[in-house]
Amino acid sequence: MCAPIFQPVPYRAEVHIVSHEQINQHLTNWTERESTAEAMIPLIGRLYRKNNVVTSVYGRSIINQSVIGIIRAHRYVRQVEDSELSVHDTMPILEALDRLELGTAHIDIGKLGVKYRDQGGSESVEDFLKREIAPVVGKYGEESKKNEGNGTKDVVLYGFGRIGRLLARIMIEKAGGGNNLRLRAIVVRQGGAENDLEKRASLLRRDSVHGPFNGTITVDEENSAIIANGNFIKVIYSDGPDKVDYTSYGIDNAIVIDNTGKWRDEEGLGLHLKSKGVSRVILTAPGKGDIKNIVYGINNDWITDEDKILSAASCTTNAITPVLKAIYDEYGIVDGHVETVHSYTNDQNLIDNYHKGSRRGRSAPLNMVITETGAAKAVSKALPELKGKLSGNAIRVPTPNVSMAILNLNLEKDVSVESVNEYLREMALHSELQKQIDFVNSPEVVSTDFVGSRHAGVVDAQATIANGKRLILYVWYDNEFGYSAQVVRVVNQMAGVTYPIFPKRTRD
Amino acid sequence: MCAPIFQPVPYRAEVHIVSHEQINQHLTNWTERESTAEAMIPLIGRLYRKNNVVTSVYGRSIINQSVIGIIRAHRYVRQVEDSELSVHDTMPILEALDRLELGTAHIDIGKLGVKYRDQGGSESVEDFLKREIAPVVGKYGEESKKNEGNGTKDVVLYGFGRIGRLLARIMIEKAGGGNNLRLRAIVVRQGGAENDLEKRASLLRRDSVHGPFNGTITVDEENSAIIANGNFIKVIYSDGPDKVDYTSYGIDNAIVIDNTGKWRDEEGLGLHLKSKGVSRVILTAPGKGDIKNIVYGINNDWITDEDKILSAASCTTNAITPVLKAIYDEYGIVDGHVETVHSYTNDQNLIDNYHKGSRRGRSAPLNMVITETGAAKAVSKALPELKGKLSGNAIRVPTPNVSMAILNLNLEKDVSVESVNEYLREMALHSELQKQIDFVNSPEVVSTDFVGSRHAGVVDAQATIANGKRLILYVWYDNEFGYSAQVVRVVNQMAGVTYPIFPKRTRD
Amino acid sequence: MCAPIFQPVPYRAEVHIVSHEQINQHLTNWTERESTAEAMIPLIGRLYRKNNVVTSVYGRSIINQSVIGIIRAHRYVRQVEDSELSVHDTMPILEALDRLELGTAHIDIGKLGVKYRDQGGSESVEDFLKREIAPVVGKYGEESKKNEGNGTKDVVLYGFGRIGRLLARIMIEKAGGGNNLRLRAIVVRQGGAENDLEKRASLLRRDSVHGPFNGTITVDEENSAIIANGNFIKVIYSDGPDKVDYTSYGIDNAIVIDNTGKWRDEEGLGLHLKSKGVSRVILTAPGKGDIKNIVYGINNDWITDEDKILSAASCTTNAITPVLKAIYDEYGIVDGHVETVHSYTNDQNLIDNYHKGSRRGRSAPLNMVITETGAAKAVSKALPELKGKLSGNAIRVPTPNVSMAILNLNLEKDVSVESVNEYLREMALHSELQKQIDFVNSPEVVSTDFVGSRHAGVVDAQATIANGKRLILYVWYDNEFGYSAQVVRVVNQMAGVTYPIFPKRTRD
Amino acid sequence: MCAPIFQPVPYRAEVHIVSHEQINQHLTNWTERESTAEAMIPLIGRLYRKNNVVTSVYGRSIINQSVIGIIRAHRYVRQVEDSELSVHDTMPILEALDRLELGTAHIDIGKLGVKYRDQGGSESVEDFLKREIAPVVGKYGEESKKNEGNGTKDVVLYGFGRIGRLLARIMIEKAGGGNNLRLRAIVVRQGGAENDLEKRASLLRRDSVHGPFNGTITVDEENSAIIANGNFIKVIYSDGPDKVDYTSYGIDNAIVIDNTGKWRDEEGLGLHLKSKGVSRVILTAPGKGDIKNIVYGINNDWITDEDKILSAASCTTNAITPVLKAIYDEYGIVDGHVETVHSYTNDQNLIDNYHKGSRRGRSAPLNMVITETGAAKAVSKALPELKGKLSGNAIRVPTPNVSMAILNLNLEKDVSVESVNEYLREMALHSELQKQIDFVNSPEVVSTDFVGSRHAGVVDAQATIANGKRLILYVWYDNEFGYSAQVVRVVNQMAGVTYPIFPKRTRD
Repeated sequence: MCAPIFQPVPYRAEVHIVSHEQINQHLTNWTERESTAEAMIPLIGRLYRKNNVVTSVYGRSIINQSVIGIIRAHRYVRQVEDSELSVHDTMPILEALDRLELGTAHIDIGKLGVKYRDQGGSESVEDFLKREIAPVVGKYGEESKKNEGNGTKDVVLYGFGRIGRLLARIMIEKAGGGNNLRLRAIVVRQGGAENDLEKRASLLRRDSVHGPFNGTITVDEENSAIIANGNFIKVIYSDGPDKVDYTSYGIDNAIVIDNTGKWRDEEGLGLHLKSKGVSRVILTAPGKGDIKNIVYGINNDWITDEDKILSAASCTTNAITPVLKAIYDEYGIVDGHVETVHSYTNDQNLIDNYHKGSRRGRSAPLNMVITETGAAKAVSKALPELKGKLSGNAIRVPTPNVSMAILNLNLEKDVSVESVNEYLREMALHSELQKQIDFVNSPEVVSTDFVGSRHAGVVDAQATIANGKRLILYVWYDNEFGYSAQVVRVVNQMAGVTYPIFPKRTRD
Repeated sequence: MCAPIFQPVPYRAEVHIVSHEQINQHLTNWTERESTAEAMIPLIGRLYRKNNVVTSVYGRSIINQSVIGIIRAHRYVRQVEDSELSVHDTMPILEALDRLELGTAHIDIGKLGVKYRDQGGSESVEDFLKREIAPVVGKYGEESKKNEGNGTKDVVLYGFGRIGRLLARIMIEKAGGGNNLRLRAIVVRQGGAENDLEKRASLLRRDSVHGPFNGTITVDEENSAIIANGNFIKVIYSDGPDKVDYTSYGIDNAIVIDNTGKWRDEEGLGLHLKSKGVSRVILTAPGKGDIKNIVYGINNDWITDEDKILSAASCTTNAITPVLKAIYDEYGIVDGHVETVHSYTNDQNLIDNYHKGSRRGRSAPLNMVITETGAAKAVSKALPELKGKLSGNAIRVPTPNVSMAILNLNLEKDVSVESVNEYLREMALHSELQKQIDFVNSPEVVSTDFVGSRHAGVVDAQATIANGKRLILYVWYDNEFGYSAQVVRVVNQMAGVTYPIFPKRTRD
Repeated sequence: MCAPIFQPVPYRAEVHIVSHEQINQHLTNWTERESTAEAMIPLIGRLYRKNNVVTSVYGRSIINQSVIGIIRAHRYVRQVEDSELSVHDTMPILEALDRLELGTAHIDIGKLGVKYRDQGGSESVEDFLKREIAPVVGKYGEESKKNEGNGTKDVVLYGFGRIGRLLARIMIEKAGGGNNLRLRAIVVRQGGAENDLEKRASLLRRDSVHGPFNGTITVDEENSAIIANGNFIKVIYSDGPDKVDYTSYGIDNAIVIDNTGKWRDEEGLGLHLKSKGVSRVILTAPGKGDIKNIVYGINNDWITDEDKILSAASCTTNAITPVLKAIYDEYGIVDGHVETVHSYTNDQNLIDNYHKGSRRGRSAPLNMVITETGAAKAVSKALPELKGKLSGNAIRVPTPNVSMAILNLNLEKDVSVESVNEYLREMALHSELQKQIDFVNSPEVVSTDFVGSRHAGVVDAQATIANGKRLILYVWYDNEFGYSAQVVRVVNQMAGVTYPIFPKRTRD
Repeated sequence: MCAPIFQPVPYRAEVHIVSHEQINQHLTNWTERESTAEAMIPLIGRLYRKNNVVTSVYGRSIINQSVIGIIRAHRYVRQVEDSELSVHDTMPILEALDRLELGTAHIDIGKLGVKYRDQGGSESVEDFLKREIAPVVGKYGEESKKNEGNGTKDVVLYGFGRIGRLLARIMIEKAGGGNNLRLRAIVVRQGGAENDLEKRASLLRRDSVHGPFNGTITVDEENSAIIANGNFIKVIYSDGPDKVDYTSYGIDNAIVIDNTGKWRDEEGLGLHLKSKGVSRVILTAPGKGDIKNIVYGINNDWITDEDKILSAASCTTNAITPVLKAIYDEYGIVDGHVETVHSYTNDQNLIDNYHKGSRRGRSAPLNMVITETGAAKAVSKALPELKGKLSGNAIRVPTPNVSMAILNLNLEKDVSVESVNEYLREMALHSELQKQIDFVNSPEVVSTDFVGSRHAGVVDAQATIANGKRLILYVWYDNEFGYSAQVVRVVNQMAGVTYPIFPKRTRD
């Protein structure tokens, strides 16, 4: 059963002759698009930095992208809509936006471009836009006056492990806009190395899984700080969450993101609030007791000003809850089981050694390891409709990142592979869960293809199994990066950093 | 969420004083048991070679075991029965067996020892045995006359890949008995190396997963043969299944085990029957068309003398069908889904490259890879009661061996974790599926612990999830070794090599 | 010897107070640089596409880079020169270049920017440039007339394995300029899959090691072609190198890059020349017999118009020869041994199985595997001065990419760690081997950090050992990507695609 | 360069006909040998337990071996001597030994068997033995009286990591003899799990690299002990080396093996001596300051009664020093460099994270990691002749166990591959370094083949490179098991557990 079979295959008859002109036309089209995309870059940058306008193409951010990145974002549309989209469609949109003295907003120029094209008529782009994004047109002056000095929100990373460093990467990347989160400090224990600060910087700079930091990092030994893409980040050494006076570093009213996993309840996390300069705390792990577990896109509107301590739930809960909500809304869920095939994490051992938890002491790179997980049960903390309906378990396997959740569901209605895939594709493109659910339809994708995915989860359409009322869905997720992106979304909401979004993300 | 938590734990007060005598008693007991086990070894060997009697302890073979292996086989009983079993219980049984001039049989001296002890009475061991194993007592002379020259069955391995080499290891190991399979030849293509024969021998001798061959291997260049533990195995170079005259090597009426996976239907596998000296063919992969797929323990009694071509199904089908049958018999199965988390196999690529199949071309050591599998559907070929009830899928992960099947079932009756585990423990110990189903109840086991398992599947009791009529079972299996053991069982039956078994394997 | 030691470390006294203004200044500087870099992008693109001018910053290409990529290229200078370099220094250079109607050239705006700044005087940028790059100033019109229709060279990939696909990625990336290589076709065997063409495209699109293709790929089933970033690439199915009529696809006078490894001598590779439309052949493996083995940077000037068949040597030979030449030139080499710790390649097996070569059949992801290599001996084919002086060997280890060569040398002169490192740093920055030798000086780098490196080899300065006349150097290399970049350099020279380079790459 | 080449190879003409009788003869010979080996087992066991006589065959221990293990030990001789050796040669030796009422000894029945056979004459086996092993003949009664109660030495494992557990496995295995080390306790920190004791036992019972424990393990919760093959091992929870009163557990005059790596100097390790019941301490890591670093076989005769604290050096120093000594003695060493390609250890991280040491924080399963090592320099602590002559470095690679040292040497004399290999083969068989140096001559061996090797290092003869006065040797070692075996040898010497060895291990 081992040797691959070789079967001779007859020649494919070659009939079509492609002329030199046709061949050259392909390349000319491409270089014209490159040229246009190059011209977009200063516009995109100016809108971002001056107007605090984040532009995107069908949910794909185009801030700080290369020319090819911009073209790819347009090309993606073809996979998901019937029509093509080109930079020639979106360039006029961008140019007009640049003239409209906009206030803060998230604007999808891809969707606007398609809409403008589809309406076909004689309306000018500028008139079209004045109608579509009316609330923010001409708001630039007013806002920029208001924001002087107070447009940003201080954030502190307590702990600087794998999630902590990815949160740093995301916040640094988004720091260019005016009204945003500012990563002001990271708090760690002295690690014992002479060159501790340089080591922290190095861990941010290079990553065996996610590759090099996108930007430049310098170490300011004198001030115990890391400067990353212009972000001055104080490195504070401390032995306890309640022992830091953040105000002495000019940090105030800060949100602390506790990514140590050391404390999970109100008492432990509450220690942060005793440190001067802290206003709110968020835990990057499931919280215990009455702490709200927030899955962005699902229950983030539960957050009130009174919530001083929140949890962003676990990576797996974030990956599965949006898809489960989508299925629940459309098909109803009787019950189900979620099995996750999960990459190893630093909590496990390299080779067999003592570990407090069951099986986790056994060598992670050498074994499949069954681990209990509360991720499926925790879904109901964000989506109470599913309370008592789901069981869950996880198998850790020897990959360093990206995991897969297998949703094995008994539904209330009949379901077919085609209909559920089409429904989820729609959700990925046009719903309010657009940032949470991604959709892939390829017979060749494997786990490493999802490294760096910023969605909470990605539905693998080719793997879907459906029969009667039974449905099995396969959801990939970058358990590090996708989760970190979700955490930053929650922190943004905690910080009151909200944007009007154009066009609105809903299914029609 | 990364740093493991350290919590100071108070000293455990030490109160019990253990005397030197107690300590020494432990070691003395052990050395006495060693001494007894040493004395058992010549008896076990003689019964095997002279009488063709295979002895075991609760299903664990004790042939060719070390002293410690024999003690461990006894100790295993403690995990599964309420009582202890010691070599002091089984030694008298063995000694008596040695005197009874037995004919061919499989005799579980562990179960007999417990039974004799439990009946407590004054009956002599010999009288007890004469009753328990009456059919074979005194049959030695009669059989040995009958078997002269015709007790064995010629077997040929067509292909010598991973399964082929493990089949060779198992058949060589069992060649010592009188009435058995004889591996007479392996058929391969010339591989292009100068020292081709030495390379074939080396692959049998050393294995990165299963360790060194248990015995000695020499190469007979002159006769193009490998001699392994006294088995003279001809290496035949051929370019096609129908091109060998086996009789020219003194091989006749042979069973050919096709482990190339190249042909799966009657037409292709039928080619073997055109080679002189072949009587029957078995495929170590799922067969196509009308070929019977045999899972030993389930439907091996479907084999008739007319079946010239059989399939031993796939490793996964072998792993899950016995457990599914057990559950079906006791609880009924409405429907279900089988997800296997599977080690990579040589069919995949080391790094991304072309592959005929979907996703299988992507790097196996770096990825989780979704692969379709017919293993769940194929269950009904051996167990028709489940026809149309199961779906299945597989995720290949970066481990080289041992896989896990997750049976996600909707049952007809309510089920609890305790009852289903207790039921499966019983099946593993006392049923006719004893060799197919193993049972483990440990909070620390992981996949590498099952390398070398000879059961078709091992139920991981600690992972079982049950709720109402929903049941999720986790079944480990050595997809190489466990499957190979099942194949050999089928070949034995094809060869008419059957044994009376004492005591009978049934649940009371 | 296992538990890491925890030692409490005293608090680092915090004395420096950093003002809000200082902190904001960092970010403002950054966003100003972003803004400038954004404005550079259309200039860089226009110079490339219109003038065929490739711009770089200290050897780092800035074509098709993102804003941050451009800033990073500038930042790199700080690591290697004493001075800083900013986009504010290079922007005026770029603007002037855009006005000078340049002809084809490679221009390092980083080095020119530093030189202009260093000379300090009152000369205008334009006057400075007219002197520095005089030969190409004003040549645009003349060239563009000449090049009409004949500026490019057809290239065919015979085979499409790992090296083949990376060659494709590099040639596609560089196709934007006017006078360049054009990847016109790939030739493969029918692989047996229904969707063969889609599979080829998918392998180009996604890679488990190198990540996604930077651009967009579509499949033109009708014309059996892949269109990648506007490059129309015919996929030709063939069973032999001498059986293709390339001219029937409009391909002529083509260079065939044989990346199958199937033929290594003049006779075998000569078959390609029998196919209509082929003018020259290059092998991406060591050639046998009299075939010239070219290591770009070392002996590429040996190529004459008469050479119809060339070899680009092996990845390891490419990695070590430049460093060996540098050392030989400065210190003399008595003798030495090169040990390479090498990533596995697709030539090995996933799990133990037959392989023609010694040890290579054993499982690659599970083992260290000693493999003989001719890479050290082959150095003398490009650098005859070292004939008979080097031995070599390789250990394959379980990483998928990036390797390390350890040069263990007995020199003719005394050497110290500082002097040799300083010398090699200079070579990496300012010599004619700038593209071949890279230099890293970090205490934290590991193999994955070098994935995607386009240098033939990277000296790890922190690992250098020197004592008397003994020197041990550690050279990292991306055995896939770095080698492919070297191959493309050779193909460019074969194609007569040469550029004047400004400023000239030499050590002063 | 990727696709393996397939070349048709002509059929090998089959000429030799092997008769049925010849084939059967092979198997009959084998079963006769099995039968003899079975009869040996009770003799081997009795000699061991009663007489404290350890028997071996050319250095391979046959204690507690299976039948096949015993035959393999004999077969090994063929690889290394010109002659064959069979159990028929050694059985008479064993039978005679059993009658001679021996005192404590290590007796190589393989070498004695060959010697007896070679002398050919008419001397009886018993007479032969009385001469060869005269000093211990008839000493049984005398010794057994003397040893009553005081023949063993208490040993305590401080720490229970990977090395600690392998030390436990070896000591338990050897506990059967009368006069030996007794593992009385292991000392650990409370690990935080409810079932801490069960977890410690489980780690001893199962290992992902070395497989299951060879024997039976039970947990005695009441007495906080693990009972392994009859060895009662107290588990003591403690927070410091100076805080245990061992005498309260009946342990006295004990040797403490510190395998934590936490303390490496006299002050730190001296803390153990403050605990009541401790007489000596040995560190399983390189010691600092004046602590003697002992490599068994090299400088173990430096140990005096005054040495209260010793170090067993590192695994790499143990692997290379014996081979270096052998080469130094025969060829002289001018200078050299030792590069080790080393498996990862638990000191590294699973995925990138903070680590005090350079590069060690980067993901171990994903990277080649350069790590400094003092192993080469430390050679001179055991072998002062090499002081100042060696440099060294290490590359950690993604394998979990077994490493390779590459000795790159400039010698004083000329050397050839054949002569140095023959010399090292001799050293492996007949010298006083027989237990330290092993020798393998196979074109197919890879790292996993050496898992479980008990030699300090294994010379890979096929890899040896020699040219003039330059020599490159490749030495495999199980960095866990081989090292642990060396440590136990040192502890035996510290305990005064010495044996007369017959025949003496020297080269003639």
